[in-house]
Amino acid sequence: MGASATTTPELYAMNGGDGRFGYAKNSFLQGHDINASKGKIGEAIAEKLDLKILLSTSKTIRIVDAGCSVGPNTFLAIQNIIESIERKYQAQYLNINEKPEFQVFFNDLTSNDFNTLFSSLPPNRQYFAAGVPGSFHGRLFPEGSIHFFYSSIALHILSKAPEEILDKNSPSWNKGRIHYINAPDEVVNAYATQYAKGIEIFLDARAKEMVSGGMAVMIFPANPTGIPYSQTFTGAMFELLESSLLDLVKEGKISEAQVDSFNLPMYVPSLEEMMELVQKNGCFDIEKMELTSPGVHASMSNASSMGKAIVMHVRAGMERMLIQHFGSEIIDELFNRYAKKFEEFPHHVLPSKKVQLFVVLKRK
Amino acid sequence: MGASATTTPELYAMNGGDGRFGYAKNSFLQGHDINASKGKIGEAIAEKLDLKILLSTSKTIRIVDAGCSVGPNTFLAIQNIIESIERKYQAQYLNINEKPEFQVFFNDLTSNDFNTLFSSLPPNRQYFAAGVPGSFHGRLFPEGSIHFFYSSIALHILSKAPEEILDKNSPSWNKGRIHYINAPDEVVNAYATQYAKGIEIFLDARAKEMVSGGMAVMIFPANPTGIPYSQTFTGAMFELLESSLLDLVKEGKISEAQVDSFNLPMYVPSLEEMMELVQKNGCFDIEKMELTSPGVHASMSNASSMGKAIVMHVRAGMERMLIQHFGSEIIDELFNRYAKKFEEFPHHVLPSKKVQLFVVLKRK
Repeated sequence: MGASATTTPELYAMNGGDGRFGYAKNSFLQGHDINASKGKIGEAIAEKLDLKILLSTSKTIRIVDAGCSVGPNTFLAIQNIIESIERKYQAQYLNINEKPEFQVFFNDLTSNDFNTLFSSLPPNRQYFAAGVPGSFHGRLFPEGSIHFFYSSIALHILSKAPEEILDKNSPSWNKGRIHYINAPDEVVNAYATQYAKGIEIFLDARAKEMVSGGMAVMIFPANPTGIPYSQTFTGAMFELLESSLLDLVKEGKISEAQVDSFNLPMYVPSLEEMMELVQKNGCFDIEKMELTSPGVHASMSNASSMGKAIVMHVRAGMERMLIQHFGSEIIDELFNRYAKKFEEFPHHVLPSKKVQLFVVLKRK
Repeated sequence: MGASATTTPELYAMNGGDGRFGYAKNSFLQGHDINASKGKIGEAIAEKLDLKILLSTSKTIRIVDAGCSVGPNTFLAIQNIIESIERKYQAQYLNINEKPEFQVFFNDLTSNDFNTLFSSLPPNRQYFAAGVPGSFHGRLFPEGSIHFFYSSIALHILSKAPEEILDKNSPSWNKGRIHYINAPDEVVNAYATQYAKGIEIFLDARAKEMVSGGMAVMIFPANPTGIPYSQTFTGAMFELLESSLLDLVKEGKISEAQVDSFNLPMYVPSLEEMMELVQKNGCFDIEKMELTSPGVHASMSNASSMGKAIVMHVRAGMERMLIQHFGSEIIDELFNRYAKKFEEFPHHVLPSKKVQLFVVLKRK
């Protein structure tokens, strides 16, 4: 309980504020994703959520957005969830006037800019809002208190990169790379093991926090089975970042050792991996688990303005972590290079579909 | 529900951050108050809180600190409350090993610096923490969800100063004053009426939010019956601020109209006024309501360093509001003058005792 369970370094949080490189202004692609998943979430609630069970022990529906960042996407997603639950309520309780109350917990790392989040809460919101600082790789809420858990584009983040890939004497040493793209199996396995551990902790915590019958909807980058990671959109994005850093090494602006000791704390699992982890945990029924294609990525190949936007998004999401490791002096040049590489990259060779996993679980 | 019920202007929040004039560094006097009230709160919990009733419908004890600011006082107060409840739990349930879980909601205005609050949460805390932005003059939590409500030195703050005292054509016009010290009865009555309205809304909201048997402990400045407000410590503090502003008017640095249109949104009630408001609401049993004497004020008369500290405290608490109205240019000079006046003031003529109201209510 408390912060002792929280191991995720706080610099993994998105850029705060609402400035040029802030997440609030650089998260509309995630907004597209939310629009794309809106209907799916509505369907899951309509078909699978049993409000009679949830409301048998509580007059309030408690909802979490884990990895909420600073908005505005979190507010759109929450509004969609609440409206879907209200529609379901009307369908299940035709003759009852009294509606449930909603309490929404906006969760992200402690270093997230909660001040910006709070000041942009919708003034006419129909729910009680609270912010919860801390890592979802650990307990965040009292036992049996959460009815609906939501997380968008956050579950690929590790509590930390695997430690063994920093060991020069190990076959898992990740020399010259910042991720596991084109890496030996030992590195990929170290990442996969670290991810599995994190998801086990994550599922254990959620199993304790959620009420029986409660629903978890999670959307996050996934690796389509059979396609090498380097040929996926996410993989290509990180490879270009690695290549930009290696250019700076060549020019002596950062050292080789700095790149060797930097590893992105992210892992993109396959559907099969996630399925296995949920089944191993055993506390949840899998209502849905499918690869989806967020519309925006498919249309990205011929739009250079979209490319620029994506670069800004990557910067909003990863700048803090990069500055912490490489210093702020190189950050503008790094992203200028990254932008150039991104523009020149032949996006059309990438598989454009099925790059996210849409998961609906129900607490047994 | 939601922010629509929130009318308190956001500039009433304390200074954020942990800088020289920040509340985090200028709140140790309130810390003294918390120490002084620690035993009283422990007693109230030991004698009056029935955990069997509270835990009959919930495995979690939910606690609120309303007007928490940025710490560290809120953490000390919460720790004391939780330890007292745990002692009571052990006394009531001798043979039960399973302890309840605690969830603590730190509440203050949306403009409060929640980022600083969250980053200073005790790492070894034994509770789940959440921040709740919004005014306590309105609903903040779902129905029947709160077991213990706490508020220290916040309940004297109005949602706004009374409007009629701005009306030049009204007998309540508060010309040449920033508060109701030495003001005609019409001004005092306008403040008292505004306060009563605010407390009615406050008690209605808490009555909805608290479970039956839940306890509210509130500590706030009070006016001892029979002693004119100008002769109390709080009254004198504000009179010196008024006098400092009037000096700036004389020197042409701010206008007379600026002072006329500024009124402190605060009211210091008597025990009898508060008693009447609680009885009128009707949802709470009054377990305790007494005037108390926080030790620090009594020892203040001969300590000029304490005087300086108090000036810094007033600045931390009121600077935002003053800058908003008078501009930032005059703020240093204003507080230099205030400090000088404070030092020269014959504190020994003030009644040194019984300047706070300690209130324990129980939800029927």
